[in-house]
Amino acid sequence: MKMRFFNAKIWDGEKLFDGELRVEGDKIARVSPVSTLEWQHWDREIDCGGNLIMPSFKNGHTHSPMAFLRSYAEDLPLQEWLSEKVFPAEALLTDEDCYHLTRLACAEYFAGGTTFVCEMYGHTRAVAKALADSGVAAVVTEGILDFDGSPKFIEDKIDDSVEYYKNFPARVRYGISIHAQYTCGEGTLGAVKRAVDKYKMPLFAHVSETAREVASCKEQTGKTPFEYLAGKGLFDFGGAAFHCVHVTSAEMEIMAQKGVAAVTCPSSNLKLASGIAPLAEMKKRGVKIGIGTDGAASNNALDMFRETYLAAVLQKCSTGDAAAMGAEFVLGAATRASAYGAEGMDALAPGSSADFVLIDLHAPNMQPGNDIVNDVVYAAGKHNVMMTVAGGKVVFENGKADVGTDYDALAERCRAIAKRIADERARA
Amino acid sequence: MKMRFFNAKIWDGEKLFDGELRVEGDKIARVSPVSTLEWQHWDREIDCGGNLIMPSFKNGHTHSPMAFLRSYAEDLPLQEWLSEKVFPAEALLTDEDCYHLTRLACAEYFAGGTTFVCEMYGHTRAVAKALADSGVAAVVTEGILDFDGSPKFIEDKIDDSVEYYKNFPARVRYGISIHAQYTCGEGTLGAVKRAVDKYKMPLFAHVSETAREVASCKEQTGKTPFEYLAGKGLFDFGGAAFHCVHVTSAEMEIMAQKGVAAVTCPSSNLKLASGIAPLAEMKKRGVKIGIGTDGAASNNALDMFRETYLAAVLQKCSTGDAAAMGAEFVLGAATRASAYGAEGMDALAPGSSADFVLIDLHAPNMQPGNDIVNDVVYAAGKHNVMMTVAGGKVVFENGKADVGTDYDALAERCRAIAKRIADERARA
Repeated sequence: MKMRFFNAKIWDGEKLFDGELRVEGDKIARVSPVSTLEWQHWDREIDCGGNLIMPSFKNGHTHSPMAFLRSYAEDLPLQEWLSEKVFPAEALLTDEDCYHLTRLACAEYFAGGTTFVCEMYGHTRAVAKALADSGVAAVVTEGILDFDGSPKFIEDKIDDSVEYYKNFPARVRYGISIHAQYTCGEGTLGAVKRAVDKYKMPLFAHVSETAREVASCKEQTGKTPFEYLAGKGLFDFGGAAFHCVHVTSAEMEIMAQKGVAAVTCPSSNLKLASGIAPLAEMKKRGVKIGIGTDGAASNNALDMFRETYLAAVLQKCSTGDAAAMGAEFVLGAATRASAYGAEGMDALAPGSSADFVLIDLHAPNMQPGNDIVNDVVYAAGKHNVMMTVAGGKVVFENGKADVGTDYDALAERCRAIAKRIADERARA
Repeated sequence: MKMRFFNAKIWDGEKLFDGELRVEGDKIARVSPVSTLEWQHWDREIDCGGNLIMPSFKNGHTHSPMAFLRSYAEDLPLQEWLSEKVFPAEALLTDEDCYHLTRLACAEYFAGGTTFVCEMYGHTRAVAKALADSGVAAVVTEGILDFDGSPKFIEDKIDDSVEYYKNFPARVRYGISIHAQYTCGEGTLGAVKRAVDKYKMPLFAHVSETAREVASCKEQTGKTPFEYLAGKGLFDFGGAAFHCVHVTSAEMEIMAQKGVAAVTCPSSNLKLASGIAPLAEMKKRGVKIGIGTDGAASNNALDMFRETYLAAVLQKCSTGDAAAMGAEFVLGAATRASAYGAEGMDALAPGSSADFVLIDLHAPNMQPGNDIVNDVVYAAGKHNVMMTVAGGKVVFENGKADVGTDYDALAERCRAIAKRIADERARA
């Protein structure tokens, strides 16, 4: 498919200019400030009408199948919410459930301009297949914990996964993750460390999401969670730490030094009353920042506009400094995938993956256009998404997401899954 | 115009049921759990397809014309932002500018399901005409301050306004407001107090938006701002206090006693680093809560979905209690206008003003529909608005707002206004 998007404003991840963007296959062929008359054949030529092309959102932390629990158990603190509501409901999920729920989440990603996710969930292969079938680029990870089995089993599982995902389309890659320090004992962490070293792969993990988690880690180990995990060499090949609400300055130094990204999930942290991550301080100390939604069970929308907005404004409020975390910085953090080990998706440039969004600059909330990047971060929302392109394919247009299957049937099926599980829980 | 909306889910402001809603002229004629076959004539019959009808948003605090300053001067604290950027730019606005800018804001209101605003701005009559011409219901207020003139002039101005607005359509009413304690001396406050008493009218005012404002009031008067204003009897006929970020428990008691609503503008308070209003405590002490956007210069979007969402989740985080501020409470606060003295617009009931929204429950972010009110507050956004009805008229449909004038020409004109003022400022 050869496509030409002309008469656009383009924010390529660094600078803003008028021009055009050309797609050939799944790659960007050209990004140019010149929009010339063209006589060659295009499968599709799109007059962008002066609207904005920008890199798609890269969602740094999600649990896609959790969409089935959206608005299921509200207004509870994290630990109670997890142990009394979420875990028992999740125990009833099948691979097939997770496949369909993930495709539904993909429709939500595309509708909001997201085309990459850093995924962590059980039933991982079903989730990965759903992401691949839908066209979402991903690093898929399993969230390993003690519950999975013996250290030997875990090592074998990782070996097997590394092999298994070699057969996947290039857009979906495997990553090693543990659920969190508090769900992984010494044996599990040892097994994961051996795998990390064997494959020289980065590690992904929930880190310091709640104050309670930090207190309990200190009590058990004498260290804070990231310090403890990093001390075991688990982040020797980089990776990403999800949430980082309660990280210490000392931990930030290690993160910066090891090139580990801190992935903030501000809406989830607000709703579960976990707190506000110290992004401004992490930024100052040279920690890479990523932005994610977390699962729809806790946040409750897979909406990167919301997260990007919150990443900026919450810092202004929590630091008392209205100049903290400018728009350009957070938009960069929200649209780059390299922090998760996915290369060639960050900026709009020739040879990069064709993952981008067309944003309506003519809508009332985007007037009068004093500063377009500020408008995108502080004023825009999913209603401004005119088109989403993922891997060279138009996956959202005219208000409809295309995940490669009939949407109405998919939504109906997911409602049935949610109902079946709620009914089973009510009987329990 | 007789319209019938059938096959809907309806949240009438209190309860959720399946049914239909009928509109005759500018009023709701019937809200019924029965959707019967109908043979009588309707100007329009709308199959809602199982989607949600709910009361429209009522925006409790805004400065509509400030849309021209959206993303104009970012990342600055309130006082610097006001004195160095906003005031000098605003000084260059004409009545005609404000008329067009307000109509543009109205397009943004309708696109986001808002049909009522509690307005405070200069060039008030131009703003009021724009609201009336566009079909937005409003309480319009002038934000009186010392700069307006002598106490005698201010009394005359209010007398004149009370008369003037009698000729307005019933949807646009006049209200008395002062800008804030820190911009009104004794003389001004005395004049406003005489007017409040003469007309037995509520008062609207910015109150305790920043810590600096509170400290300076205490230094000058020995009292906190609301205590000081209420002590002068300015709220003897109720009213609303905007922001209330730094109100004391003692002030909350007076607010509850006098029936004064606290109107929270969370996105503006975050972005200007003003703080998080203690809504949960105000609620506990019986203070009426309203929700507003503030102007687009500070927040930067006239989006009540965002404000409603933030009103809930910020409290969870700031109080450390995930159960604080449930969805139903905030959605009620965001959709009622009676707190501003506008009656008959709160709930969907026969005889009420026909101001409501049709929300798409089939979109990916609204699946699987475990709890619709939670979904609206925590997951929905402007992209879920299928239709907005204001005073019995369809004002948003198929992604287009209808403010009674050509939108593209209006947007172009507003861009020209913003450019003219930016150019003048650059020359200054």
